[in-house]
Amino acid sequence: MTTAAPDDSFHVFDTTLRDGAQREGINLSVADKLTIARHLDDFGVGFIEGGWPGANPRDTEFFERARTELDLRHAQLVAFGATRRAGVRAADDPQVRALADSGAPVVTVVAKSHDRHVELALRTTLEENLEMVADTVAYLRERGCRVFVDCEHFFDGYQANAEYAKRVARRAHEAGAAVVVLCDTNGGMLPAQVQAVVRTVAADTGARLGIHAQDDTGCAVANTLAAVDGGATHVQCTANGYGERVGNANLFPVVAALQLKYGRTVVPPAALPEMTRISHAIAEVVNLTPSTHEPYVGVSAFAHKAGLHASAIKVDPDLYQHIDPDAVGNSMRMLVSDMAGRASVELKGKELGYDLAGDRELVGRVVERVKEQELRGYTYEAADASFELLLRDEVHRAASGEGGEGGAPRFFRVESWRAIVEDRPDGTHANEATVRLWAKGERAVATGEGNGPVNALDRALRVALERIYPELARLELVDYKVRILAGTHGTESTTRVLISTSDGAGEWSTVGVADNVIAASWQALDDAYTYGLLRAGVSPTE
Amino acid sequence: MTTAAPDDSFHVFDTTLRDGAQREGINLSVADKLTIARHLDDFGVGFIEGGWPGANPRDTEFFERARTELDLRHAQLVAFGATRRAGVRAADDPQVRALADSGAPVVTVVAKSHDRHVELALRTTLEENLEMVADTVAYLRERGCRVFVDCEHFFDGYQANAEYAKRVARRAHEAGAAVVVLCDTNGGMLPAQVQAVVRTVAADTGARLGIHAQDDTGCAVANTLAAVDGGATHVQCTANGYGERVGNANLFPVVAALQLKYGRTVVPPAALPEMTRISHAIAEVVNLTPSTHEPYVGVSAFAHKAGLHASAIKVDPDLYQHIDPDAVGNSMRMLVSDMAGRASVELKGKELGYDLAGDRELVGRVVERVKEQELRGYTYEAADASFELLLRDEVHRAASGEGGEGGAPRFFRVESWRAIVEDRPDGTHANEATVRLWAKGERAVATGEGNGPVNALDRALRVALERIYPELARLELVDYKVRILAGTHGTESTTRVLISTSDGAGEWSTVGVADNVIAASWQALDDAYTYGLLRAGVSPTE
Repeated sequence: MTTAAPDDSFHVFDTTLRDGAQREGINLSVADKLTIARHLDDFGVGFIEGGWPGANPRDTEFFERARTELDLRHAQLVAFGATRRAGVRAADDPQVRALADSGAPVVTVVAKSHDRHVELALRTTLEENLEMVADTVAYLRERGCRVFVDCEHFFDGYQANAEYAKRVARRAHEAGAAVVVLCDTNGGMLPAQVQAVVRTVAADTGARLGIHAQDDTGCAVANTLAAVDGGATHVQCTANGYGERVGNANLFPVVAALQLKYGRTVVPPAALPEMTRISHAIAEVVNLTPSTHEPYVGVSAFAHKAGLHASAIKVDPDLYQHIDPDAVGNSMRMLVSDMAGRASVELKGKELGYDLAGDRELVGRVVERVKEQELRGYTYEAADASFELLLRDEVHRAASGEGGEGGAPRFFRVESWRAIVEDRPDGTHANEATVRLWAKGERAVATGEGNGPVNALDRALRVALERIYPELARLELVDYKVRILAGTHGTESTTRVLISTSDGAGEWSTVGVADNVIAASWQALDDAYTYGLLRAGVSPTE
Repeated sequence: MTTAAPDDSFHVFDTTLRDGAQREGINLSVADKLTIARHLDDFGVGFIEGGWPGANPRDTEFFERARTELDLRHAQLVAFGATRRAGVRAADDPQVRALADSGAPVVTVVAKSHDRHVELALRTTLEENLEMVADTVAYLRERGCRVFVDCEHFFDGYQANAEYAKRVARRAHEAGAAVVVLCDTNGGMLPAQVQAVVRTVAADTGARLGIHAQDDTGCAVANTLAAVDGGATHVQCTANGYGERVGNANLFPVVAALQLKYGRTVVPPAALPEMTRISHAIAEVVNLTPSTHEPYVGVSAFAHKAGLHASAIKVDPDLYQHIDPDAVGNSMRMLVSDMAGRASVELKGKELGYDLAGDRELVGRVVERVKEQELRGYTYEAADASFELLLRDEVHRAASGEGGEGGAPRFFRVESWRAIVEDRPDGTHANEATVRLWAKGERAVATGEGNGPVNALDRALRVALERIYPELARLELVDYKVRILAGTHGTESTTRVLISTSDGAGEWSTVGVADNVIAASWQALDDAYTYGLLRAGVSPTE
């Protein structure tokens, strides 16, 4: 395995934020896009295509905020746009100017390379289209941008009129495009075709080539690799293969194949073991359940049914795995649902300041409880604070001796709570919640109103507690996520709520699971305030 | 396109019932297996591997019942088993005898072809393993079976000891195996490797070769096609790619590529348009939600979102699709989203049976409303029924003339509703909702309890309405999704709810957006029942 850092000789170009966002059901806010960009940068991709500045307000805002809020370590930000309109100079086309104005150091320009698309979709002549490509590239180069040209429908165009498709590629290259990207926009190609076309076009045009594959034949990853075999040195992918219709070439298996099977360093070696985590984190942001059967990163990707081969796997697991799962941050599983191993609990404990290595029994009990809770729908990967509360509970239980009570820190004891949502004749809603609790020997009853029942509960809880614990005034809920789990009866499903809370200095996440969203939220709120008081150095009183 | 019926010169071999059943979470009864076998036979595969008779009671029962209950038109049933044990004659090994006794005309025998697996897993010598292969094949041939040999771990074995791997293949061929199947058991191969190995082994052994690919690199479909390019004439696949770890080569894209792209008739031409239906039917039997993004058969596989494309799609849909979706029984769908323009609204209207092409003003108003609503958090691409209600509203408003009232069909008018969640001292929750409404001139007041506030509201609404509209009894909520939008203040965010409802004959989706989850759910429920009554042919009364 090579260990050098990736350089400009090979480009991993991510377009999750632009083409990936075309997937049915994905709808990204600017904040989502910034978060995803940070994850992609952590993964070490070379380029992050952020959207089309000027085409819609959200993308324009993204590029504006990126200037101050995005501190990229590896990646360069890329603006996407189209060639100029027919019959105007690129310098006079506001769409093209907006690309240069976006502040992105790199611009991808989409160009038509299929003769019928030029005539039917652009409604211009084949010659004018060539001028549009050359003029747009030249203008953006003058404005100081590095330019990549996406030749849309290239492979279909090549089948229809190979000479014209190649003329577009050549013209882009001659005008100064750093990379000419051949796009299988309709996704109908197979690897052998892709490799042959890339090889011919590279020889005939002399251009540096890239590949953009869609997955309509189920071959996008293979098509991307076939293009590399044919000479492409720039691959366009999306996280988890998100994209229009079936999707795009999936970034993770493409990078894993290049790095682990081709021995080519295309992302920093230290980033590859982050792949599984980053894949799941991005799925959370776009609010899609991570696919359990995704190559390399799915929870089932290295799951073995114990039995026939169990003893041989023990002797030499490599005989039954195509790669070491650690290389991509995944792990082998011999039994279903064994997500939390002893080692990871020990490591996590250490990270949180508890040395558990000496206490096999305690670690075993924590693993048991995590398994039980995950079976019920909890997830601790995204809820560190709830995990720490569980861990503290077991640590203190162990310290208090055989049969001791749980030692979770308690700052308050809830007597009861209630939430009411009522619609009003004018179409608005009244949301009211009442909380009854005990803290420091005092009983507090408080009612809160909010724009929803959870918000009302949150306010009631704060009013009840803040008089006793003024430290809570600093806390703010900064994120709230709801996921319905394994529902076969619609509204009767189990609900999981994840809440992130901030005290200005840091953020923590808590989880709640229940048969309804209010009760699940309540659990997560309870953990969130308990953890906040712990962080503030307040001593538990209950 | 060729139209001849498939013959023995090319084998489509399905192993959903054997290898596919290894997928985590799949657990098939004998009845399930018989149902799936019928679907696979409808699809026209040549071989259906049913399981391992003798290895477990369920598979033994399957082969027994198959004799009388399975009337296959295209496929031959295949029993799966292993080579004989070391040191006994095949005729004396009960496991091998059970294969011949199963009544299946074809038997697949798995053989080790990786030297280290022979030594570590079989714990025998390389020479004895060759004898086991030859003896088992010869015995089964004597018993009248056609024999295929699966060379397990062939590609990894080939990398470790190519000569030995080829000796196993040659020995199977010489003993009378009709096909020698090269298996990428660990799934780590890439297409170029597969093609090269298949080509070499075919030349060196003279055997008829097959391919069995696992999807651990995300390349199983491409690897299968690469093997065909290398000379294989037998492909082993599973429906929807079900299988251990990441899964197996997916039957549907493999067959579609061979039939539609290679022009090779591998299933009866009339069967291909049944592909989407059969894929979904098998997903139902194994109780997994059909993947929306599956190549060829997913509901998103021919869904178009971008407004840019929509205008040209009207002119020539073939420019934007790699195949005609009808060829695989799927259909094009236009997604309505704020990226879409007038053209996609017109196309969507047409799909729903409204010809809007003549009315530019109406289309403009619908586009405007969709944009407004999407800005507020609604999404119509996943909520067809809510979009149709919006569209009907505008169509009827237009019909009622300038300044006319909205024409959304109304079956009931809600006076008020209320939902209460209260925790009980034992940690459980009481969820109660009350609905007051008018329908057909009657006032109805009903209270419902549920395991959550939305479920309670749903029940109260049903109780109130069912007396007046008995048609609602058939309706069932089948999916419920919640998404918190753009939350910068935690629990004060906007909430979007998507509900899918079924009446047994079909499913529809509705959306609601509000500042709280209960109110958003209420909107989606209201749309869901309104649309359900429309579908049932009830006339609006309000």
